[in-house]
Amino acid sequence: MTTAVSDLLPTLDEADLTRVDAWWRAANYLTIGQIYLQANPLLREPLKAEHIKPRLLGHWGTSPGLSFVYAHVSRLIRHTGQDTIYLTGPGHGGPALVAAGYLEGTYSEVYPDVTRDEPGLRKLFRQFSSPGGIPSHVSVTTPGSIHEGGELGYVLVHAFGAVFDNPDLLAIAVVGDGEAETGPLEGSWKGISFLNPAHDGAVLPILHLNGAKISGPTVLGRKDPAEVRELLSGHGYDVIEVEGDDVPGMHHRFAAALAQAWQSIRTIQQAAREGEWDGSRPRWPLIVLRTPKGWTGPAEVDGVQVTGTYRSHQVPLAGVRDNPEHLALLEQWLKSYGPEELFDADGAPVALLREQDPAGELRMSANPHANGGVLTRELDLPDFRDYAIEVKSPATVRAESTRKLGEFMRDIYRDNPDRFRLFSPDETNSNRLGAVFEVSDRAFMEQVHPGDDALGPAGRVMEVLSEHNCHGWLEGYTLTGRHGLFATYEAFAMVSASQTIQHGKWLEEADHLPWRAKVPSLNVLLTSTAWRNDHNGFSHQGPGLIQNVLTQRGTVSRVYLPPDANCLLSVADHCFRSKSYINLIVIDKQPQLQWLTMDEALEHCARGAGIWNWAGTDDGASDPDIILACAGDVVTMETVAAAQILKERLPGMRVRVVNVVDLMTLVRPKDHPHGMSDTLFTELFTDTVDVVFSFHGYPGAIHQLVHGRPDADRFRVRGFIEQGTTTTPFDMTVRNKASRYHLVMDAINNARRLPQGATELKEWCQAQLARHERYVVEHLEDMPEVRDWSLGDWATS
Amino acid sequence: MTTAVSDLLPTLDEADLTRVDAWWRAANYLTIGQIYLQANPLLREPLKAEHIKPRLLGHWGTSPGLSFVYAHVSRLIRHTGQDTIYLTGPGHGGPALVAAGYLEGTYSEVYPDVTRDEPGLRKLFRQFSSPGGIPSHVSVTTPGSIHEGGELGYVLVHAFGAVFDNPDLLAIAVVGDGEAETGPLEGSWKGISFLNPAHDGAVLPILHLNGAKISGPTVLGRKDPAEVRELLSGHGYDVIEVEGDDVPGMHHRFAAALAQAWQSIRTIQQAAREGEWDGSRPRWPLIVLRTPKGWTGPAEVDGVQVTGTYRSHQVPLAGVRDNPEHLALLEQWLKSYGPEELFDADGAPVALLREQDPAGELRMSANPHANGGVLTRELDLPDFRDYAIEVKSPATVRAESTRKLGEFMRDIYRDNPDRFRLFSPDETNSNRLGAVFEVSDRAFMEQVHPGDDALGPAGRVMEVLSEHNCHGWLEGYTLTGRHGLFATYEAFAMVSASQTIQHGKWLEEADHLPWRAKVPSLNVLLTSTAWRNDHNGFSHQGPGLIQNVLTQRGTVSRVYLPPDANCLLSVADHCFRSKSYINLIVIDKQPQLQWLTMDEALEHCARGAGIWNWAGTDDGASDPDIILACAGDVVTMETVAAAQILKERLPGMRVRVVNVVDLMTLVRPKDHPHGMSDTLFTELFTDTVDVVFSFHGYPGAIHQLVHGRPDADRFRVRGFIEQGTTTTPFDMTVRNKASRYHLVMDAINNARRLPQGATELKEWCQAQLARHERYVVEHLEDMPEVRDWSLGDWATS
Repeated sequence: MTTAVSDLLPTLDEADLTRVDAWWRAANYLTIGQIYLQANPLLREPLKAEHIKPRLLGHWGTSPGLSFVYAHVSRLIRHTGQDTIYLTGPGHGGPALVAAGYLEGTYSEVYPDVTRDEPGLRKLFRQFSSPGGIPSHVSVTTPGSIHEGGELGYVLVHAFGAVFDNPDLLAIAVVGDGEAETGPLEGSWKGISFLNPAHDGAVLPILHLNGAKISGPTVLGRKDPAEVRELLSGHGYDVIEVEGDDVPGMHHRFAAALAQAWQSIRTIQQAAREGEWDGSRPRWPLIVLRTPKGWTGPAEVDGVQVTGTYRSHQVPLAGVRDNPEHLALLEQWLKSYGPEELFDADGAPVALLREQDPAGELRMSANPHANGGVLTRELDLPDFRDYAIEVKSPATVRAESTRKLGEFMRDIYRDNPDRFRLFSPDETNSNRLGAVFEVSDRAFMEQVHPGDDALGPAGRVMEVLSEHNCHGWLEGYTLTGRHGLFATYEAFAMVSASQTIQHGKWLEEADHLPWRAKVPSLNVLLTSTAWRNDHNGFSHQGPGLIQNVLTQRGTVSRVYLPPDANCLLSVADHCFRSKSYINLIVIDKQPQLQWLTMDEALEHCARGAGIWNWAGTDDGASDPDIILACAGDVVTMETVAAAQILKERLPGMRVRVVNVVDLMTLVRPKDHPHGMSDTLFTELFTDTVDVVFSFHGYPGAIHQLVHGRPDADRFRVRGFIEQGTTTTPFDMTVRNKASRYHLVMDAINNARRLPQGATELKEWCQAQLARHERYVVEHLEDMPEVRDWSLGDWATS
Repeated sequence: MTTAVSDLLPTLDEADLTRVDAWWRAANYLTIGQIYLQANPLLREPLKAEHIKPRLLGHWGTSPGLSFVYAHVSRLIRHTGQDTIYLTGPGHGGPALVAAGYLEGTYSEVYPDVTRDEPGLRKLFRQFSSPGGIPSHVSVTTPGSIHEGGELGYVLVHAFGAVFDNPDLLAIAVVGDGEAETGPLEGSWKGISFLNPAHDGAVLPILHLNGAKISGPTVLGRKDPAEVRELLSGHGYDVIEVEGDDVPGMHHRFAAALAQAWQSIRTIQQAAREGEWDGSRPRWPLIVLRTPKGWTGPAEVDGVQVTGTYRSHQVPLAGVRDNPEHLALLEQWLKSYGPEELFDADGAPVALLREQDPAGELRMSANPHANGGVLTRELDLPDFRDYAIEVKSPATVRAESTRKLGEFMRDIYRDNPDRFRLFSPDETNSNRLGAVFEVSDRAFMEQVHPGDDALGPAGRVMEVLSEHNCHGWLEGYTLTGRHGLFATYEAFAMVSASQTIQHGKWLEEADHLPWRAKVPSLNVLLTSTAWRNDHNGFSHQGPGLIQNVLTQRGTVSRVYLPPDANCLLSVADHCFRSKSYINLIVIDKQPQLQWLTMDEALEHCARGAGIWNWAGTDDGASDPDIILACAGDVVTMETVAAAQILKERLPGMRVRVVNVVDLMTLVRPKDHPHGMSDTLFTELFTDTVDVVFSFHGYPGAIHQLVHGRPDADRFRVRGFIEQGTTTTPFDMTVRNKASRYHLVMDAINNARRLPQGATELKEWCQAQLARHERYVVEHLEDMPEVRDWSLGDWATS
């Protein structure tokens, strides 16, 4: 049975209109106050230049529209009790959202020094865009927000991520028409093709067309409205349009539109939840709201039109401190909202405004979903040791390590059906994580055909050929307190690198705010890596994301390079339990040698780095002749192989092998919390012995990580030096001068002491490489089996 | 007068049908041959396991559709002489495009060892996806391509970039339905909102819906066709649909659709060029082509449907070497194309196939626009010295440096109206480049209103709020031989970082192909930088792109940090003249101190780095007490200020100031062609004196760059350490421990010799910083002018 909307949400009556309009006026007043005023916040004396801030920052243009929508959604919540969060695509509307939180009282609850009186108002205004204050965008400091408004394009992905597995939640997502021009935003309308009306909540996009961005019009703002309607309808939405600048007309029309949209959402959801749904994708509502940019602001300044144009984007009256006419205009503008009716003698919002606020956690600025850590329930994790690969001795078993992670995640899915999801650009099977399909299909709301594999509306594995959607959905999912992993081809993780960076910034800042509860980490699995994309082209070979995560603060950045399946399981378990990090896990999907038993893996991963005595020949000597270090699966194989060659062919040489799983252990402890102590660093690397370090990524990364360690210049780093094509795995290591033979020669060239036979061994290595060169050159004639070369002779014996 | 299409392009007749179909069958045959065969290329003996390659790589699924379209476009060209290039969104269809180039003879012209006979065929097959051969995707090695098919999403941006200012060119852009799920692709349909039918060419998008990607269906493939039509119509296109798998029916229907599309394009263009156009955006045609994935391949394998499903994506028959049934199926499949009719006794394509090829450079595989360097006309560059800022002595003039670049580009626009464009996400004015609007409007094909600034269909300045579009358009523009610059907020350059990386890979690989002419460089101006986004939030503060360009090969990567306007002009002039580089130019837009006269700037930039004697106090001594080095505008100001403080307050200390403009000079010459010689490095930095290096970007970059230089550990690097918010410019330097006071203390802490007064000076610096801390804390009470703090006292005196 569908409840008629009119039962819960009556037509906007005079009392409600008065409340909504007063609240909107108050929000606009507070927005302008933040941009301009450092004193006289309630205009209780005539406005003077000295009341104006010395530096005028902030964005007016989008703000009145944001507050207008906010006020109406609050009314909807008041009447219906709908659990709702508000995402502000036009992030420049920061002051509007701060005003909303202040009016709702949340701001003072979270920041008790910003009181609900005149001194508090003064502080509210002064802190905005000021040193020691708050940023100008909707940001981490804004209560009620899970969406930073700096880099545009992600409001819908965050909204969809927030409502997956949150059946009772509604996410209002205001899309700016500037933002709507970005690729990521355009690619994110399709969220509804993955949104299940029974077990997910709803997103109500409000495309706010005010027609202009910083310095010109927008494409959607200047298209024929019929074409815009066609476009959004083609994306699958039921389009509701509201346009104008007349008050109270706009209030009535928008209230009706919102009621219609909400009714439609409830009808869809109730049908799906009461078994009256055929499984096809619903046509979800979407509102197109057309208002002038800078609505209610000064129409003209110095004879030039401002409202309705890009000129209202930031500070429409720029000369108020020096130009008395501008100052008068500002005063008149502020007074047009009637502040004397809106704030009482103390400066607190009057009762009329408070009546407009939903109760407690239903206030959008106080909704706990927007501080998702408070709602987080830990994952019910199976014991990762149960998925161990049995390793009797190193390098005797070969396995696809990520397949084990797939089995682990299958059971996480099974045991946590409401709070864990895997996100991947159509690569779950390719990345050997397909075990998850034993317990969940791929989510898909478009047509399902007979013969489709693991696909359907009930599915909860997220596959879409868009790194932006995958990454953004996971962000929204974790920021609202749930858990997940984004698995992707290593090279194409760069597509969403800016999202990784921006989410890192969010977590970095949240770390300073005691009221923000920690949220589950953003886990990113980089697989199908550079070294083993030998079968694809050069475009698929790029370990660049590591480079970018390294630049994030130590409070957030974590990079793990497990060398085998048991280490991967241990690392994954750790990451799934962790909070508020960016966890990068890098490991390939192809069959690879396994090194450690589960017990050894556990200990190795707990330390983050360690000596592999079985691989080396230094017998715990405090002064090996050379140290071969490695971080990453393929380079570990080459390093162990190099050590083996040295062991067999130059037995007098003392070689130590060090493997690094947790890359951040290399950094000095003062620069990263995982940085190993000087004592431990010296235990592993000594203070003086040369280190040949073979690294999965670009070599420069290691140089920057070990800077400041004893005699850092002694680290010779091999790594990916941007050489690749479609070739064999072994040829990839040769092209990048990181093959076992290169490492042996490096060891000989840098060892502090050379036993007899070193020169001959170098010659042998050169001969091996020459043999390989011939192999490549002659390949087109011979077409030999590739297999031998991919694994290395030594390993197969 | 419009020429009727039927005059030029008759209905497909029997003779043409025979040619087109034979060519299509030949292309399919060659595609499969590349995937499977190492011998017996013409099946002149029964197929045996030993004829099969040891490793089966490649992608069949998309290939037959690509070849089908190619064949029909070739026919169009034959009849009409239309200058046409072909861009393959589904890059996995590499073998199809190689087959096309081979059939057209271009392949043998470019790679003479791949002859048009049986041995050549054998080589063609063997080289595909083999060591020493060619990659599996459409790549830089594929003649006729300007589009690498690895990272999906950019086919339309490349196509639009190619036809801007190329009025007679038609770019066929096949969009895969997998690719169509990506954000960048969805955001690029709007190219037509910026395409002028008079002075630009045309893009004909062909959305090839075969319904599946690697392991499942696509969103567009499973939407109601009416909804897809609505979506594309909403993007502004006139949609033409062709669907089926029947032959010859599909030939007739597709030929008609293509004729209709071409007629429509010609009609639009002729109207615009003959003055019969009202300036409104035309409805350009677009073809939706629905064919089964793997069309003409084996319908079923082992009882499971393959054609029409994701199972045909790569190698549909995987077991051919071991499974005789699969082998027989493969033979049958190959023979279904009738190779005996298609290749003559020598193995060359028969006359029927050759008749299908357009003549000479009209063959799409030989079109010079796809090897744009051969068409490049150098820019007619005004003398950049004419835009110089007069600098009588250092630090006496303050100016917005990028404004000078804007004036320079204004005149480049004026003098090169057909081959230069600026691309920017709505930030031309914000970035102080607005002088270009004196000679060109913004390109905009949607409605223009009275009162709009510098906006209209005749405009050639490209502004769209999409870094992906800007970057991709510039790539297409330069790959077809023209010149330009992408100017963007530094932080948001990370949005398109993966494009920078992939374009770098293209240029790196092109460098090895003698037949590929060098193309104009991809110039990227990073402005509105981290340090001076004090007025925006933390999200706007990120110098990450430098980090990524550093990992590219030395043949391609260039990073410049001009400290002032005159250096910027010199660097920009150099970049506009250069070929096949990624040139990153990093400088802020805010008013900044000017240091060098134009003559000094010229010399300084030519060397890439130099000692600023006027700033230091070492008087050319070979052993200064400390070296203060810097790269980047704000950090240069802080460095010079620190040197000034030391000069005034610790006159006995010998301080050398080194400024670096060309970051790559720091690298050893063996690692980068710009790397300065050891002698020069020692001249600037000595071998032993400690260096306090103040860097614009993340400090780790310098550590990796100077690795291997004498005693690299002596470099103490200050830089952006991921600290920011909305604050004052000076506070940004303090938060990142890179202020003048930090640098003075660093100098004192690391100097080899300390004159008296050093301890007192350190205390003074600490006091200054404490004063600043108080300033920030007390700011909300005092609201002092920000200006003093942003510039530094010393500079204003």
